[in-house]
Amino acid sequence: MAAYLALTGGVGGAKLALGLAQLLGPDELAFLVNTGDDFEHLGLHVSPDVDTLTYSLADLSNPETGWGRRGESWNFIETLKQLGGESWFNLGDRDLALHVMRTQGLRAGRTLTEITREISRKVGIAHLILPMSDDAVRTMVQTVHGSLSFQHYFVRERCEPSVTGFEFVGAVAARANPALATWLARADFAGVILCPSNPYVSIDPMLAIPGIAQQLRSLRVPIVAISPIVAGLAIKGPTAKMMRELNVPQTAVTVASHYRDLLDGFIVDVTDEPLLAQIVGSDLATIAAPTVMITLADKIELARITLEFIRRLKPH
Amino acid sequence: MAAYLALTGGVGGAKLALGLAQLLGPDELAFLVNTGDDFEHLGLHVSPDVDTLTYSLADLSNPETGWGRRGESWNFIETLKQLGGESWFNLGDRDLALHVMRTQGLRAGRTLTEITREISRKVGIAHLILPMSDDAVRTMVQTVHGSLSFQHYFVRERCEPSVTGFEFVGAVAARANPALATWLARADFAGVILCPSNPYVSIDPMLAIPGIAQQLRSLRVPIVAISPIVAGLAIKGPTAKMMRELNVPQTAVTVASHYRDLLDGFIVDVTDEPLLAQIVGSDLATIAAPTVMITLADKIELARITLEFIRRLKPH
Repeated sequence: MAAYLALTGGVGGAKLALGLAQLLGPDELAFLVNTGDDFEHLGLHVSPDVDTLTYSLADLSNPETGWGRRGESWNFIETLKQLGGESWFNLGDRDLALHVMRTQGLRAGRTLTEITREISRKVGIAHLILPMSDDAVRTMVQTVHGSLSFQHYFVRERCEPSVTGFEFVGAVAARANPALATWLARADFAGVILCPSNPYVSIDPMLAIPGIAQQLRSLRVPIVAISPIVAGLAIKGPTAKMMRELNVPQTAVTVASHYRDLLDGFIVDVTDEPLLAQIVGSDLATIAAPTVMITLADKIELARITLEFIRRLKPH
Repeated sequence: MAAYLALTGGVGGAKLALGLAQLLGPDELAFLVNTGDDFEHLGLHVSPDVDTLTYSLADLSNPETGWGRRGESWNFIETLKQLGGESWFNLGDRDLALHVMRTQGLRAGRTLTEITREISRKVGIAHLILPMSDDAVRTMVQTVHGSLSFQHYFVRERCEPSVTGFEFVGAVAARANPALATWLARADFAGVILCPSNPYVSIDPMLAIPGIAQQLRSLRVPIVAISPIVAGLAIKGPTAKMMRELNVPQTAVTVASHYRDLLDGFIVDVTDEPLLAQIVGSDLATIAAPTVMITLADKIELARITLEFIRRLKPH
């Protein structure tokens, strides 16, 4: 057996995560998930990326919106709006059950990891979902209009303010998820996959936690990333817009150089194959593959290619 | 102008409250509401009696269930149940918005009175709804199976354990709603109505607060009650069952003697007119009236009779 770890953030990452989970059993694959987007809202602890992965793996995702649950209703938030409550963050009636349970558990002194495990088991997920940390790390998006918490930037302000940088408040003091070390210490541990998530606000918050960065760097297994940028566009979310505002080329090349020395392998979309020549790094292997995942078959195919790629790579 | 105060608990009381609100304007009528049933559930502050009155006055009540909101959906609680959360207390998706807003407000340091006022205004209620206290008073139902908080007794245990007594934890130290004294001090204050609510668990918690009991007893205006027991039955809720378990006759007579010296007038249902002769008290006036309220017209008619009765009574 060989075991892998996939780092994932929002919707794009969750697509590949689902593909990987079809090919690898719960003994072979664990997920490390960004919680820099977590926030307290209406007195509830919301963990958007953990829930996106949970809904994806449990086949509960809403395919139309790309976020939230299928078959969702919106009577809570509609009523809250009528009452003059804060309604800019859309919370579905079913989705709300997770936030209420999570908040109740945290108040009772349980960890986010424990609660996430309990919820994921209840919806039939056997794979381990590890929030990056049980400590609070909060992604702040620095913009020309000042520093905004991630959800304020992403949802309330609809990613409109021009981005100048990022800060991961609490990251330096945060401990990595306690189960991560155990998983990485497995004798059969074979590779790390950075899913096609936003490098700045999905993957970087995880890498900003010293425990995680150190553990990954000390590994003797290949680390590969899949570009979330395809033909200069982000499939989902503000990655490309952020790159433009940060004055870096909106290409997969930028993603590869962003991760720099961490990577042993990098996958770009087939439409970006001409860019491969521009990606230069010491011992960085590159391939092009169909990375635009629409159907479940697309997700499984990219997972298959990623695993095949990683298996023939030499570790850094 | 003449001003009145109506004390009310759950569904039965809210029916008369709605009738009274049709006849008296917001300058003439205020409500004092039981909060002994309030509880923290799933991390949320639930105020069942305040909400029952709010929904009644705002014409949002569910006529089929007799509690909760009309047009309610149940996706939150259904999901919570699937996740293994505590689902014995049915929280509707729309109803939940009130609990989340209230909890958020309380955590931000606002009072239950302020939050209740804000919510009631938002749903179009002009009358003053005064929670009996901004301090926590918790009705404990003493049963043969031990002491249970009210909602555990009422909802989770479905009123099954045999009742031996009641305790209103926190009542002695609780301050009456700060706006109550102002309302009662009005020069045109003309009467108090104890709505047909459960005397033990809806009205008594209010009377157990020293500030409220003292203020009502010092009034020089009539105080009248409407029996919640009709022909030996409680229209709604466990009043009659409690009486049986407490070994007192399940009749309106028991209600009248329960309130003892507090009352100047008492209204029984027309079917209980033969009981009037058994109700003896110093200067206690009694009448029989149709107290079973099905339609809005029923509610207005009982309100009209109650006000007419109170207007011709001498204060105690």
